[in-house]
Amino acid sequence: MRIGVVAPSTPIKRELADRAVEIAAADFPEAELVFHPQCFLTHRHFAGEDHDRAAAFADFANDRSLDALWFARGGYGSCRIAEEAIARLEPQARDKLYLGYSDAGFLLAGLWRAGFKHLAHGAMIGDLRRSGGEAAVRRALGWCVRRDPDALEPGLDGRPSVAFNITVLSQLLGTALQPDLSGHVLLLEDVSEYMYSIDRSMFHITSNPGVRAVAGIRLGRVSDVPVNEPDFVADEEEVVRYWCERAAIAFLGRADIGHDGANRVVPFGAGPNKG
Amino acid sequence: MRIGVVAPSTPIKRELADRAVEIAAADFPEAELVFHPQCFLTHRHFAGEDHDRAAAFADFANDRSLDALWFARGGYGSCRIAEEAIARLEPQARDKLYLGYSDAGFLLAGLWRAGFKHLAHGAMIGDLRRSGGEAAVRRALGWCVRRDPDALEPGLDGRPSVAFNITVLSQLLGTALQPDLSGHVLLLEDVSEYMYSIDRSMFHITSNPGVRAVAGIRLGRVSDVPVNEPDFVADEEEVVRYWCERAAIAFLGRADIGHDGANRVVPFGAGPNKG
Repeated sequence: MRIGVVAPSTPIKRELADRAVEIAAADFPEAELVFHPQCFLTHRHFAGEDHDRAAAFADFANDRSLDALWFARGGYGSCRIAEEAIARLEPQARDKLYLGYSDAGFLLAGLWRAGFKHLAHGAMIGDLRRSGGEAAVRRALGWCVRRDPDALEPGLDGRPSVAFNITVLSQLLGTALQPDLSGHVLLLEDVSEYMYSIDRSMFHITSNPGVRAVAGIRLGRVSDVPVNEPDFVADEEEVVRYWCERAAIAFLGRADIGHDGANRVVPFGAGPNKG
Repeated sequence: MRIGVVAPSTPIKRELADRAVEIAAADFPEAELVFHPQCFLTHRHFAGEDHDRAAAFADFANDRSLDALWFARGGYGSCRIAEEAIARLEPQARDKLYLGYSDAGFLLAGLWRAGFKHLAHGAMIGDLRRSGGEAAVRRALGWCVRRDPDALEPGLDGRPSVAFNITVLSQLLGTALQPDLSGHVLLLEDVSEYMYSIDRSMFHITSNPGVRAVAGIRLGRVSDVPVNEPDFVADEEEVVRYWCERAAIAFLGRADIGHDGANRVVPFGAGPNKG
């Protein structure tokens, strides 16, 4: 299969792309990674200007020779192009798998809202910079190439699921990217946010009528929380349980996702039931 | 007049309250500051537990012997109590002025939504810790006690105005605190947020149908922006102009508000026309 790689947010280095190709060649020889040159552009904060990133995404999504679209890296930037880029997609774009997480959640949300069926929350090439990141990338490839059940988040129970970064989900509520999450199990994770900011985002998320229609929330890892003065004291589980209780949303326990090497894959929708 | 002080977010020290009393005694002898003991409580991150802060706010707001309610300080925490506390207000609470900004914006937003007529975005006692903060506090008192026109933000033009912190406004959209801003001039400011976060918040704010109904946006100061790698390059004015243009919202120039000693007062609604 052929997996196209685009960078809707921030760029990756060639060396990281080369490392991903080596991993794929060693462990997934039936897969070919095709990097759009846009992955290596730099414009200010971003992997090229907005029109570069939107065009690369739409070109690869509409390319019938590609079976999947893998987002290279998160950071920030996909909210600036998501609505316009998704509007440019043609019917064949619905056949392929879209894989990524973190800032790419803006695109996954918009695609889910637009009725795309094959989306997955999972590691990206940028994760190769993390300790243990190769394991997460192999898991993402394992799902993408072979639908390997061992790649899956272990708590998926057959109910429709989605997974998002807490801050990203907060920032797309009420926009043209917000999907209908009624009846979904919502998995959440975050990284590098103050705990008071996680608390405020959870106020925002759990106050949203659309989010209140979910079947429940499961909490992944909230990592690299900066030190704050005063200390927030409460940890992420206490925070999420508190807001779930206030909003009468079921708290369904922890989830094995996060910005780390242990990050497992969450296919959107009623994915395979591991049990 | 008697000005009650409560702390819906984080606590202040006694010394800061004493300094505010000195300033009021020297320059506004007709005013008496009445500090609720809750201002000095500490519970984890907050000025007391949620029920302490909600009760202090409602008690003082409903107190007929007080002419104004001044929020002691921002930080974080008022979103946790705003909806419940506002629901406890009695008719006489509508007669007094409510004054503050930053995190207190959650309360100002909810009060504006609830039809309270006397709200103002202005400095708080916590600003006495800032360089030049005494001038901002004198300006807030000048408006509160004497409706001093020199305290006012100089660009107010008679159209209904509101002012909010960018991050706070973003986080209350879609909640029970979001006010109707149709036809309002919306003044914005922020502090201590990454520029990519300001950009993301502006995506969120300008994508909201309610916000798109404003008469226009004016930009105050965005200060203490942390260094980020990669640098965002664009400054706050470029960011806000960009999102206003995308959303077909009029960008109406700069505003003289922010987390600093120059912060001027913005009465909500059709305030006095300085011109």
